[in-house]
Amino acid sequence: MKIRSYTVEEYIKRVEAFHGFSAPGVVLGGFMVELAYQHLPAEGLFDAISETTKCLPDAIQLLTPCTIGNNWLRIVDLGRFALTLYDKKQGEGVRVYVDPVKLDKWPEIQTWMLKLKPKKEQDAHRLLLELLDAGTSILGYQKVKVDLSRFNKHERTRASICPVCGEGYPSSDGEICLGCRGDRQYCVISPNPDTQAEKIKLR
Amino acid sequence: MKIRSYTVEEYIKRVEAFHGFSAPGVVLGGFMVELAYQHLPAEGLFDAISETTKCLPDAIQLLTPCTIGNNWLRIVDLGRFALTLYDKKQGEGVRVYVDPVKLDKWPEIQTWMLKLKPKKEQDAHRLLLELLDAGTSILGYQKVKVDLSRFNKHERTRASICPVCGEGYPSSDGEICLGCRGDRQYCVISPNPDTQAEKIKLR
Repeated sequence: MKIRSYTVEEYIKRVEAFHGFSAPGVVLGGFMVELAYQHLPAEGLFDAISETTKCLPDAIQLLTPCTIGNNWLRIVDLGRFALTLYDKKQGEGVRVYVDPVKLDKWPEIQTWMLKLKPKKEQDAHRLLLELLDAGTSILGYQKVKVDLSRFNKHERTRASICPVCGEGYPSSDGEICLGCRGDRQYCVISPNPDTQAEKIKLR
Repeated sequence: MKIRSYTVEEYIKRVEAFHGFSAPGVVLGGFMVELAYQHLPAEGLFDAISETTKCLPDAIQLLTPCTIGNNWLRIVDLGRFALTLYDKKQGEGVRVYVDPVKLDKWPEIQTWMLKLKPKKEQDAHRLLLELLDAGTSILGYQKVKVDLSRFNKHERTRASICPVCGEGYPSSDGEICLGCRGDRQYCVISPNPDTQAEKIKLR
């Protein structure tokens, strides 16, 4: 079986290089992307949605032109291990999901997917073997029409210089940038003295 | 100048292959990651935060072990073109940002970054040349300590089978999965009849 243009071995090497290790979720994600493409038109420009933050986005980034930074991949975190590839302009596409009914034959996949045991009690090697054996057989797919209005690009907003941090930010965020409002700040900053001096000059 | 282990030309080729084209934000992001590493300890395991969804996450994914799917890259969308690389265990790290004060010498970068003209009136070729010329000189950096408690991993939640869609989801999301609650659903599904029949059997 091929995963797009790759053999399974080639794909796993790419997973290791990008994701850091051959995580079961990225391996399974490879089969999911492959199944989606099998049911999409041969030609077209497809955007992607991952319904989970975990692993699956990396399979999409490795096997499609969609990345999180080019905005063709979006994560709608619904907690389901599922993805959708859809026509960028029309919204028609294919959603691929893991079908729990089909997991009965694959005890280690079932244990992993349904979290029946803590991770350390799971058998990672056996899980990988089962995933490679199962391929697309544990998946289901649906034809979907994506509501493109949910993902419409915002109009270009003007940029402002934040009077607190001195950096650029979208003017539509208000008088100061979201980072300086406090509630979203994720770190304490020890300013570099030179940089700070320059910022003070700016104000 | 090198961007991590790459020459600038090699890096731009990698950007084109992954991101689809040599987007100015990913090119600039390369210099930002490079500057961050220059001020980090030589050894260590660093997680990453991007303060924007636009372009910058792809530079991080290309130049660090952090990806959106392995969860070592997180996006905290503050609308600022800035990133932080920090020690996974201690939280100490370096935040790199674009310093508007330093853009006066680079009119095309200034126009692009501060959105002074609509994109179609900007000169993409000149912008790229200015970015390559400017390198890290338009950036600032700060030592930071990231509040790791914001990113603590959740306890393993148990998984349930959603009685509506028949798929697995985190039990902590409630009686039905987030996708079936309606407000977050992003598409209309035309079920594959075979699959649907199997799902009905499950219930």
